[in-house]
Amino acid sequence: MEKNKLVKEIYRKKSFLCLGLDTDISKIPSFLLSESDPVFTFNKQLIDSLNEIIVAIKINTAFYEEHGSKGWLSLEKTIKYINSKYPELFTIADAKRGDIGNTSDRYAKAFFETLSFDSITVSPYMGSDSVKPFLKYKNKFTILLGLTSNLGSKDFQLYPKQENPLFKEVILKSLKWNESNNLMYVIGATKADYLKEIRSIVPDSFLLIPGIGAQGGSLKDTFVNGASNEVGLLVNSSRAIIYAGDNNDYLKKSFKVAKSYQFEMENLINSLDD
Amino acid sequence: MEKNKLVKEIYRKKSFLCLGLDTDISKIPSFLLSESDPVFTFNKQLIDSLNEIIVAIKINTAFYEEHGSKGWLSLEKTIKYINSKYPELFTIADAKRGDIGNTSDRYAKAFFETLSFDSITVSPYMGSDSVKPFLKYKNKFTILLGLTSNLGSKDFQLYPKQENPLFKEVILKSLKWNESNNLMYVIGATKADYLKEIRSIVPDSFLLIPGIGAQGGSLKDTFVNGASNEVGLLVNSSRAIIYAGDNNDYLKKSFKVAKSYQFEMENLINSLDD
Repeated sequence: MEKNKLVKEIYRKKSFLCLGLDTDISKIPSFLLSESDPVFTFNKQLIDSLNEIIVAIKINTAFYEEHGSKGWLSLEKTIKYINSKYPELFTIADAKRGDIGNTSDRYAKAFFETLSFDSITVSPYMGSDSVKPFLKYKNKFTILLGLTSNLGSKDFQLYPKQENPLFKEVILKSLKWNESNNLMYVIGATKADYLKEIRSIVPDSFLLIPGIGAQGGSLKDTFVNGASNEVGLLVNSSRAIIYAGDNNDYLKKSFKVAKSYQFEMENLINSLDD
Repeated sequence: MEKNKLVKEIYRKKSFLCLGLDTDISKIPSFLLSESDPVFTFNKQLIDSLNEIIVAIKINTAFYEEHGSKGWLSLEKTIKYINSKYPELFTIADAKRGDIGNTSDRYAKAFFETLSFDSITVSPYMGSDSVKPFLKYKNKFTILLGLTSNLGSKDFQLYPKQENPLFKEVILKSLKWNESNNLMYVIGATKADYLKEIRSIVPDSFLLIPGIGAQGGSLKDTFVNGASNEVGLLVNSSRAIIYAGDNNDYLKKSFKVAKSYQFEMENLINSLDD
């Protein structure tokens, strides 16, 4: 997908909400368990219900790999369904991959070609040649881990100290790579203090923001500190939306939660024009 | 697998060779392509041929994910075959995973329970809570990326400078985690200069060493600088062994290459007793 198209969708829907499909079969409504592929059915119903108030879908590969090849089949069916029915939705493989060049080549092929995702999250630990194979794909996006939302992010991402933390080095160095315009960054919503500085380093890049809801980040702080001139944010919510209900009314309940996020986003987007 | 058992196998076979199954369907002998699952058949034949001169098998997940759920099925069949027929072989999922705690939980389940690997490679970028879910498993091993074999390793693993590089901070901090006795480390064979110092920090840990062969590392330098009192090394070779031949005689040719590694290893192991 072209970046412009994503920006247009954000303005059309007045939303920068990303739906996180961390689908856990032990948490989905029990009446779905009689389906031949309960995980796919659950995902499909959520996507059908929410597609007009979200702009992106993030699929967390761990929740599918947990079930082996059967899980990968649910993943395949989900991404295929999105691409055929809602091609305007920006798709993210939240896979945190990254390896030596000849291996990253395969991961890029797996997620950009075989599965046709628009983007993938990538860990920068192994450096430039582990990331570049992803960047070669035109109109595909590499979402580099910057400063993540979890507690452990302080262990190495802030190394060696406050003034020159690793995550800043990652962002600065990544800007020198060819096709760096295909880069986006993961920045946790729990790190709103850092967002202003990060935005000044990458004024035009999209930031993927997890950590709203279950992890405690604030949507308003994220927007005020992190929005670009064209919004430039994808704020993800997974558990708070998809497990809002656990019965026949789960779609209604998840819609209500997602809609409340979208409503807050609409107000924030409108404030950009002021 | 218990660590002692791996050590015993190394002495029994006089080998610390790890076979890397980076199986690329475009590179396997063409006569295998008529098989129902050529990747699995190729893996199976190599394992049957080499099991007495190797002690470990490393499966690079990227090469299987490239083919979607069908690829995962080949991976599943391969690990199941090893576990049932050669339980004495130490198995490594070379997956480079790592995510927030509740997601790493799923990856741990995927590779340690669903697939029953003995170990998995993990990226440390997201810190302690991204690694700890793997460490909880008794007699399973987490192989943390330390200093990798590729060129890009210098970008962030050596940050900010020679005296206090990130990769050393990763190793030092990891030693303070509970169950740190379940840790091993990836150290590239192309980094022999650093091996002596690394070995002094982790005198008893196993090091997984890629980068021999195609990437140019030396087996002797690796051993001299990196061996522990109980060898403590798993040296991986993938391409140099598995693509040694491309015809009906491929098993003979790959055996010859693997045997020459094992022979060199035997001499090195014997030198420890001197």
